[in-house]
Amino acid sequence: MKIELYDTTLRDGAQTEGISYSVNDKIRIAKALDDLGINYIEGGWPGANPKDSEFFKKMKRIKLKNSELCAFGATRHPKKKVYLDPNIRGILDSGTKIVTIFGKSWDLHVREVLKVSLEENLKLISESISYLRSKGRDVIFDAEHFFDGYKENPNYALKTLLVAQDSGAKTIVLCDTNGGTLTKDISKIIFEIKPKIEVQLGIHTHNDLDLAVANTLAAVGAGCTHIQGTFNGYGERCGNADLCTLTGILKLKMGIDCISMDKLKKLTEISYLISEISNMKHSDNQPFVGRSAFAHKGGVHIDAMIKNPKTYEHIEPQLVGNQRRFLISELAGRSPIVITAKELKLEIDKKSKKAKKIFKLLQDLEHQGYSFEVADASFKLILQKELKKFKKFFELEGFRVIVEKRKDERVFAEATIRLKVKGKEQYTAAEGAGPVNALDNALRKALIQFYPQLTKMHLSDFKVRVLDEKAGTAAKVRVLIQSQDEKESWGTVGVSENIIEASWQALIDSIEYKLLKDKINA
Amino acid sequence: MKIELYDTTLRDGAQTEGISYSVNDKIRIAKALDDLGINYIEGGWPGANPKDSEFFKKMKRIKLKNSELCAFGATRHPKKKVYLDPNIRGILDSGTKIVTIFGKSWDLHVREVLKVSLEENLKLISESISYLRSKGRDVIFDAEHFFDGYKENPNYALKTLLVAQDSGAKTIVLCDTNGGTLTKDISKIIFEIKPKIEVQLGIHTHNDLDLAVANTLAAVGAGCTHIQGTFNGYGERCGNADLCTLTGILKLKMGIDCISMDKLKKLTEISYLISEISNMKHSDNQPFVGRSAFAHKGGVHIDAMIKNPKTYEHIEPQLVGNQRRFLISELAGRSPIVITAKELKLEIDKKSKKAKKIFKLLQDLEHQGYSFEVADASFKLILQKELKKFKKFFELEGFRVIVEKRKDERVFAEATIRLKVKGKEQYTAAEGAGPVNALDNALRKALIQFYPQLTKMHLSDFKVRVLDEKAGTAAKVRVLIQSQDEKESWGTVGVSENIIEASWQALIDSIEYKLLKDKINA
Repeated sequence: MKIELYDTTLRDGAQTEGISYSVNDKIRIAKALDDLGINYIEGGWPGANPKDSEFFKKMKRIKLKNSELCAFGATRHPKKKVYLDPNIRGILDSGTKIVTIFGKSWDLHVREVLKVSLEENLKLISESISYLRSKGRDVIFDAEHFFDGYKENPNYALKTLLVAQDSGAKTIVLCDTNGGTLTKDISKIIFEIKPKIEVQLGIHTHNDLDLAVANTLAAVGAGCTHIQGTFNGYGERCGNADLCTLTGILKLKMGIDCISMDKLKKLTEISYLISEISNMKHSDNQPFVGRSAFAHKGGVHIDAMIKNPKTYEHIEPQLVGNQRRFLISELAGRSPIVITAKELKLEIDKKSKKAKKIFKLLQDLEHQGYSFEVADASFKLILQKELKKFKKFFELEGFRVIVEKRKDERVFAEATIRLKVKGKEQYTAAEGAGPVNALDNALRKALIQFYPQLTKMHLSDFKVRVLDEKAGTAAKVRVLIQSQDEKESWGTVGVSENIIEASWQALIDSIEYKLLKDKINA
Repeated sequence: MKIELYDTTLRDGAQTEGISYSVNDKIRIAKALDDLGINYIEGGWPGANPKDSEFFKKMKRIKLKNSELCAFGATRHPKKKVYLDPNIRGILDSGTKIVTIFGKSWDLHVREVLKVSLEENLKLISESISYLRSKGRDVIFDAEHFFDGYKENPNYALKTLLVAQDSGAKTIVLCDTNGGTLTKDISKIIFEIKPKIEVQLGIHTHNDLDLAVANTLAAVGAGCTHIQGTFNGYGERCGNADLCTLTGILKLKMGIDCISMDKLKKLTEISYLISEISNMKHSDNQPFVGRSAFAHKGGVHIDAMIKNPKTYEHIEPQLVGNQRRFLISELAGRSPIVITAKELKLEIDKKSKKAKKIFKLLQDLEHQGYSFEVADASFKLILQKELKKFKKFFELEGFRVIVEKRKDERVFAEATIRLKVKGKEQYTAAEGAGPVNALDNALRKALIQFYPQLTKMHLSDFKVRVLDEKAGTAAKVRVLIQSQDEKESWGTVGVSENIIEASWQALIDSIEYKLLKDKINA
């Protein structure tokens, strides 16, 4: 069986709260999806969004290797001639061979939203598709709210599909637009209509019940061979079916031909890239590609994993370009020390005095409130330092931070920093949005001429946890910083009763780790 | 049909990367789950974790209204007598009537991890259950890796269940521990074994394929009446089945009796509370309870929604205590203003200009990142100020905080503060464990002679949340402070890109509220 993958990140995904793509963002995402070998890329709705028209214009000069670009739109407006409807013209102007249009399948929508007769809606569907066909386009028809419509008026919902088929649609996509349909109903309904449809059937689901992926698979089981989704599951409300997860399942769990094993290895990287471009934090717990997807914490699990990875992993993480991680914690024992040392090209015997000493140090630090589960980079620095392999990149002489507020004025933060780099004394000052930001700015100012690669890294996550909340303002705090450059992301930690000191520790670790790994990989 | 809800947030959820509960955190979560009416709360694994033993000890003095607390553990160690096994003793010491133990159902695990014969593993199961039964406990048996085991050796996997049943387990829970099983296989396997099992069947799924919820529902369809999950889907790797989503689906989509409609309205609030305690960002796109779950962005959608909410919403958000949001033009209720004013012995008409103005202010503040759900005192101060009922207790002239670190020295924090109280100028300085603590100390020094009742109040909770984590050290932070005196506790909030300013706002609100309420009650 062959399944077509249809991505709508650039259209439905762009409806996510907080996402707003520039034309360039869209081009970068389209290229990434092409690279992965997704069959269809829905680029946008040119009739509804001028930015999308510009995107299609620019895409005319870009050759895709694997994917087919599609323009999206609606059936014609009830009060417009099809050849004058700006939405239909927008689709045609986009110049794609394949176009996708949506029409109403739920009588409630026809009556209350379109406010036309049920008969009239069928005409909108048939005229729009026939017209696009007459212009040489292949048409995919998205039957909006098909399942909700079928539940209330099965005859009418089915009729909309038949009209689309008769008008020449090559694929009919059944949409669970509101995301409220249970998996068993998806199966049941598709089994009922399948014998009546001759063209290809597709599925488009939303995640309002956390069932988008399951519903897509159920549809595949019932005979749909075209599936629509978005990367990382972006989309309005609770999002769409995650095409990234679906690709992993179809290929690895069901043995369905969709993308090659070679391309599958890019899955994690492309998922990260799209989250970067979308300016959304990548979900740690995302199936297949998340940072935690193959991370093991409990001691029982880690011991078993070392005996045989199959014991607590459903696939090998390398297949999707992800990696196994053992979370460093007191509960995990000494094995992670050995494994991490190996990653750093260092050797240490699990039963050696050194390993015991490091483990003891780790326990002490955890007792003080440090946590290395997420702060893998801080842990690696400790290993380097304990194994006497670490050379300082700079030496701190001191810093001072001042925060001041005068009557009815905004507060003001300034940091000065004094350090030595490669024998040279640096003394810098900077302002910032707050005390930590001011320190960060002053530190970068001091280092950047010596280590220009620091321009390539940025902090992607900054978390503060108050450890002993009952101590009020004198409580210890733990600061976790996540940083990334163009290749990977890493975490660092700092702990102190003084939030500035804690942030400082995590900040320094983050920069030192960047410099260290560049040196190791050089 | 009646379905039992079994929550394992405190045990499996605690395996999430980044989550680490204190005993007090666990107690607060247990109380929240009890409040919601979850049938069973798995409190932890006393044999593996000393913190969990302490939790059970403390819980002996706390009466739950709706839930049954359960202790968790493993079948006995292959080399220990059951009555000497510390893990089994830990379970018994916890004092719960109901206990849950897991045992191996996958022959691979028996051979490679336990390293005992298949026969021996059956003995571990039967002895452990029989012993716990002999001590008067009701036993739930978690068949770890049941589905993976069944796929490879169905006879043996089934045998482990039968042994558990014969030894007196009241419920047998089928676990998809690695989360790699497809929905159709879950159904197929349960249908095959169901006729052979006489006791209650349960289901426990993980989300490695984004199918945890779907697989749980499929299991219910195949006859399981006990479902295990975690709140917000916390758990190792990609997490467990989200009990929050499942509760919504069972009750609203399947009409299954699990919790009352009244309690269902608390779903959103409790999901937030648990995410706060876990110090995890609440997922905007979480089904039913997420901030975006009923948020509408597209113009087409909003137009239709105004005509009829059913057009783009699968349920009414109020049913789960959530609310509809229009991302372009926000519409919400003014009732909370009227209700809170009444508590302060103030009057305001819901339809008045004043109420509209305050509502607008609140929206602006929420947009900036303030949140008044926990910060009731800050909200009351706003009402007082807007209704011109507030008299200042002191006036700030300014403050300065200095944090300094010299080479290899501990950091040092000092604050000076200048303010006017009852016409008198006060100028004080104090050190502190960190900048906020120094400010807190200097402020109290300045005020205490005028308001001696401040010695009676203290801060009981101090939380920092980074709002826009991607902005790194320049991100906005929200500080929540909880304070209490001998009579009550109250919450205050501050937001700024500068953590010291944010803390200052929350600190000042806390003190002002204390003085205000003493005045009102005097």
